[in-house]
Amino acid sequence: MKSPLFKHRSIRKFKNRPIPDDTLREILEAATRASTCGNMQLYSLVVTRDAALRDELSPCHFNQPMVRQAPCVVTVCADVHRFSMWCEQRDADPAYDNFEWFLNAATDALLAAQNLCIEAESHGLGICYLGTTLYTAGDIARILELPKGVIPLTTVVVGYPDESPELTDRLPLEAVVHYEKYTDYTAAEIDELWAEREESAETKRLLEENGLPNLAQIFTRNRYRREDSIAVSNAYFALLRERGFFNN
Amino acid sequence: MKSPLFKHRSIRKFKNRPIPDDTLREILEAATRASTCGNMQLYSLVVTRDAALRDELSPCHFNQPMVRQAPCVVTVCADVHRFSMWCEQRDADPAYDNFEWFLNAATDALLAAQNLCIEAESHGLGICYLGTTLYTAGDIARILELPKGVIPLTTVVVGYPDESPELTDRLPLEAVVHYEKYTDYTAAEIDELWAEREESAETKRLLEENGLPNLAQIFTRNRYRREDSIAVSNAYFALLRERGFFNN
Repeated sequence: MKSPLFKHRSIRKFKNRPIPDDTLREILEAATRASTCGNMQLYSLVVTRDAALRDELSPCHFNQPMVRQAPCVVTVCADVHRFSMWCEQRDADPAYDNFEWFLNAATDALLAAQNLCIEAESHGLGICYLGTTLYTAGDIARILELPKGVIPLTTVVVGYPDESPELTDRLPLEAVVHYEKYTDYTAAEIDELWAEREESAETKRLLEENGLPNLAQIFTRNRYRREDSIAVSNAYFALLRERGFFNN
Repeated sequence: MKSPLFKHRSIRKFKNRPIPDDTLREILEAATRASTCGNMQLYSLVVTRDAALRDELSPCHFNQPMVRQAPCVVTVCADVHRFSMWCEQRDADPAYDNFEWFLNAATDALLAAQNLCIEAESHGLGICYLGTTLYTAGDIARILELPKGVIPLTTVVVGYPDESPELTDRLPLEAVVHYEKYTDYTAAEIDELWAEREESAETKRLLEENGLPNLAQIFTRNRYRREDSIAVSNAYFALLRERGFFNN
């Protein structure tokens, strides 16, 4: 029998039912059991349950209904502030205000986030990651009153599922796994890896809906456009500097 | 009963026993079930089992014995190359050569990596993340022949455990969880959160061994020094540009 990881679906519709405190606590504790760089735990999990505050966060996530609907919105942050404070109080000079430590803290934070999601699912809860966090990280930081040394990376909404979506397809395993070294793809291999998805009924539906000749152009022309990506990249990088993660 | 996530320990000593192919495949498949931005799967897992190649990677990880000892070394990479190739072959203009997409790809990669670890542990295997990956990412990219648009983020060694270490302590849950908004720490709270660790026998041993007055100074003066962090930050950021992840 396959493990529960094979059953993961992102949930975007939630029941109006709160998460019991002891369940939430166990989920958060499971998050902290993930591997962490030097056991420094360079992350913070901001758990927002208050409806008014979730309303305030909602536009940061382009008003996706999950933010208001899910009982629990967890903003996952890289955090070098707490550890640096600890150092400063001990006459130790912390040097975590640079890009290396943004990467270490982001790694800590994301491994903890994934543990949180897996534990939540084991309690019958559903989750969805909100990639919108990167687009509006500065606004989120302001709303959640994050101090310098703390920056939002992603958000996880958690609640009891009110839908039961199909498993999402994935590329064949050979697409993402390389044995020994990286083996670059031939054009024919790329075609083959995407063939099933491109021939699916779902793709045909999307092409009709978007009036575009292929799935790739839906990504580049509609979903993720160059001008938006450049703007997000520049804004997030500026925020990284402002929050004290790039004093290289 | 608590979930298996509560039993995670990093394993640094492995048996000389290979991982059966079907087990490895299931672990890698579980990795691909993690959430991924727009279902784009912007990562590659380079699975190195060949002993000569693991020898070659070993200095990149400061010759930590696990790299030679574990049967399987997985280099976890952010990868916008494969998806961009797919786009280009479809007359779509990919714009993933910027910082936003480094962050999206890194998120995809790290969530997949954590799934990989959890699945591996469910098969009786042990894992350890190697943070050294960031220090020598350029060398690793060269050895593994990573094309432009692919950059190493972390490495996971996987194998059958030949040790059974104690569970590592963590800060009290209150250290990393904030309810509603971020509540900044008072100096007294910081002292309290670290008190148990600072008073432990393990810390006393470390202070004696390092000849330093407190645990924080072991971090700042011995383990992670400013000059090293600045060098790593600059080198990794230069690599990010060179690999085509920063054309903002």
